[in-house]
Amino acid sequence: MTVAIELLVNQLREVLSDEQVSTNDTVRELHGKDESHHAMNLPDIVVFPRSTGDVSAIMKIAHANLIPVVPFGVGSSLEGNAIPIEKGISIDFSEMNAILEIRPEDLLVKVQPGVTRAQLNKELKKHGLQFTVDPGADATLGGMAATNASGTTAVRYGVMRDQVRDLEVVLADGTVIHTGNLAAKSSSGYHLNGLFVGSEGTLGCFTELTLQVYGIPEFVTAGRAVFETVGDAVSAVAALLQAGISVGRVELVDEASITQVNIYNETTYDEKPTLFLEFHGNDAGMRADIEFATEIFEDFGCKSVQFEQDNAARNKLWEARHSLAYAYIHAYPGKKLMSTDVCVPISKLAETILYAREQLNTVGLVGGIVGHVGDGNFHALLMLDPTNAQEQAQADRFNEHIVQYALLRGGTCTGEHGVGIGKMKYQSMEHGASLLVMKSIKAALDPHNIMNPGKIFNL
Amino acid sequence: MTVAIELLVNQLREVLSDEQVSTNDTVRELHGKDESHHAMNLPDIVVFPRSTGDVSAIMKIAHANLIPVVPFGVGSSLEGNAIPIEKGISIDFSEMNAILEIRPEDLLVKVQPGVTRAQLNKELKKHGLQFTVDPGADATLGGMAATNASGTTAVRYGVMRDQVRDLEVVLADGTVIHTGNLAAKSSSGYHLNGLFVGSEGTLGCFTELTLQVYGIPEFVTAGRAVFETVGDAVSAVAALLQAGISVGRVELVDEASITQVNIYNETTYDEKPTLFLEFHGNDAGMRADIEFATEIFEDFGCKSVQFEQDNAARNKLWEARHSLAYAYIHAYPGKKLMSTDVCVPISKLAETILYAREQLNTVGLVGGIVGHVGDGNFHALLMLDPTNAQEQAQADRFNEHIVQYALLRGGTCTGEHGVGIGKMKYQSMEHGASLLVMKSIKAALDPHNIMNPGKIFNL
Repeated sequence: MTVAIELLVNQLREVLSDEQVSTNDTVRELHGKDESHHAMNLPDIVVFPRSTGDVSAIMKIAHANLIPVVPFGVGSSLEGNAIPIEKGISIDFSEMNAILEIRPEDLLVKVQPGVTRAQLNKELKKHGLQFTVDPGADATLGGMAATNASGTTAVRYGVMRDQVRDLEVVLADGTVIHTGNLAAKSSSGYHLNGLFVGSEGTLGCFTELTLQVYGIPEFVTAGRAVFETVGDAVSAVAALLQAGISVGRVELVDEASITQVNIYNETTYDEKPTLFLEFHGNDAGMRADIEFATEIFEDFGCKSVQFEQDNAARNKLWEARHSLAYAYIHAYPGKKLMSTDVCVPISKLAETILYAREQLNTVGLVGGIVGHVGDGNFHALLMLDPTNAQEQAQADRFNEHIVQYALLRGGTCTGEHGVGIGKMKYQSMEHGASLLVMKSIKAALDPHNIMNPGKIFNL
Repeated sequence: MTVAIELLVNQLREVLSDEQVSTNDTVRELHGKDESHHAMNLPDIVVFPRSTGDVSAIMKIAHANLIPVVPFGVGSSLEGNAIPIEKGISIDFSEMNAILEIRPEDLLVKVQPGVTRAQLNKELKKHGLQFTVDPGADATLGGMAATNASGTTAVRYGVMRDQVRDLEVVLADGTVIHTGNLAAKSSSGYHLNGLFVGSEGTLGCFTELTLQVYGIPEFVTAGRAVFETVGDAVSAVAALLQAGISVGRVELVDEASITQVNIYNETTYDEKPTLFLEFHGNDAGMRADIEFATEIFEDFGCKSVQFEQDNAARNKLWEARHSLAYAYIHAYPGKKLMSTDVCVPISKLAETILYAREQLNTVGLVGGIVGHVGDGNFHALLMLDPTNAQEQAQADRFNEHIVQYALLRGGTCTGEHGVGIGKMKYQSMEHGASLLVMKSIKAALDPHNIMNPGKIFNL
């Protein structure tokens, strides 16, 4: 530990208790990585605030000493978003994990940033309510807001940004602001909620979130529909959405991934492009929707479609989708999973997925494709040997090709994982001159560039 | 015309044709006011760009000469948003009114800012599509994006900000940027769509908008439900939303306003708080929703509820709601309509409306209350004599009381009309320290403060 770090620790211990400030190697290692393939880098210090006041005090010290700060949830990010690449202080929000208020009549909940999705839903269930954003991982709500997470339910309920009614944010200099209010809509002043959600810790630390929640739907039906080609499956989804049929979830799993799942689960699912679906609603309306959806699927050559309303049968039906990542990880011990994340207009989705499959075959990488197809978002899941530089380079090239293909078709390099380190190189191509607007906002709010520096873009 | 203005006109005529630059008094008068009670102020020059290039050239000249610029749609704003209070150039977008592209499969449309809502819906109808935001006035889409307009359908489809996928924006110095892309979701960089929507011309001029559209619903049912008290009506709506019943529109009209409508239309509607509703969906689902809604209404003391599916009968049912503003204007010739616009969490809506009614009676102003109650937003409509300073002062005081009441309950001073001139004085109370963040963003993007200066906040 250098003298400078020792002095910083002493300053932090003047405003926090001793156990809230750690320079322990194991603790630092836990805060030096996320779930991605990006290289580990350790923070100098990890702090565990217990209140907004603690966070403000930490930021004032960091600001006075020009020390980089990175907010940290559970480290489930996928693009190195929470890795402290310029060291400094990692702020771990695990001790700020209280559900502060549930307002059933307003369909709102107020939480601290360290509350996880599962923790919140367990509590909401007692009120017949649910928080809808489901990125797969049991991420913290602070982290999900920081990356604008989404997942399987976005097609119905929207992404994380759509759920945020208000954020309490500690800015780079320790100032505490609120970005919104409790009203369902507002035309008052600039929309700061939208700006801070997805800012990946580069504009401030979230210390309180007021989020929209929904009633648990009265009826849920799960479905699985098997198609001859990826193009047919995606076109069927586009037709479904155009017809205004409200779908709760709609996920594509490609043939290669169904094969992997069959090996892992010892199942015999048709090894063809498959849609996994969920419909929510009142019984009569849902039945009409399902009937209409089945007709549309048949128009696109679907020969096998199956629906289940019973809870256990529904879980069984979705089993292949749920076990997909495990199936890959289990099949390639020692390798690490890497995921692409482009999102394109739905009219361009089929060709983009076909292009991705073709490129996967060309570069000779093992992988499958899974898509949140209702949003035009899909992931190519690749299994990489982290010690094999050539394989890593091949995977990077593959990712680049898909991103370029998507951007030329009006898409984005990341639908839900965020920019972090991995997508920085595409920001200029994607945003053009508006990247300068983003940089000027960053410079105005964090002039010394201490908030998660080296992420999204370099100043 | 001063020499300075003459020089400016000459510069503008170097990049635009003569008929695109006007200093005619009648033209300036048309651009010196909006539909509000705020005082007229004339621009020095009105320009009529025909392309993004024209707008960029205009902004470069304004920027070099430090001349204020105000974008202008049809002038239907309600808070003086488009009044050039510091004179300068009014940019009229009426000649940029082309629908550039309709992408039915992507449920997207690309338009120029001068396209109006009715013009767009007429074209979309040919594709079985609709643009959902309905603020009442046949506003331009550029203007609606600038104020983050909403209206009767926001409860189902969201506000203007929710529909914007991408904006082409000309910044203060003439730079052209895009704020988004065509994908349904993105976690790439800062969310500039959300920031520019609602910025009321203070950050840039919109020159192209890519907007989300929806399929026209298969079935629509209109309804009217009469309650004993405003509290009962609002509680019934809250219960409806909590139960997850999807409602297309839900509007409250208070007893005073029904009385006014009865006089105007020579009708005999029950002079009691009334909900006007619309349900959209498939036939079976909608019927189930209506049945459930009726049960909920009866739980809250509703004694008369009526539904109509036929088009003519639906219009007849909604007649009282549609003719409300005319009824007031017709009853008070010579007076001007002023509208409050607070939005509160729905749990606080009933008490806020009751407070507003009580205050109306106390100050002795004539007026009624109409509410987009599904969003917690309502308007108190007042009839004012514009030449009577005392009446104006009373109305201002009334507005202040309601705004303060709403802000103390987690609400906002404006749900959909924007800040303009009228709500500037509440910005500090509503936003606290985050107002400084807004100002720093404004200063970063428009350092000479030439974009609609003197609106939202003073720097």
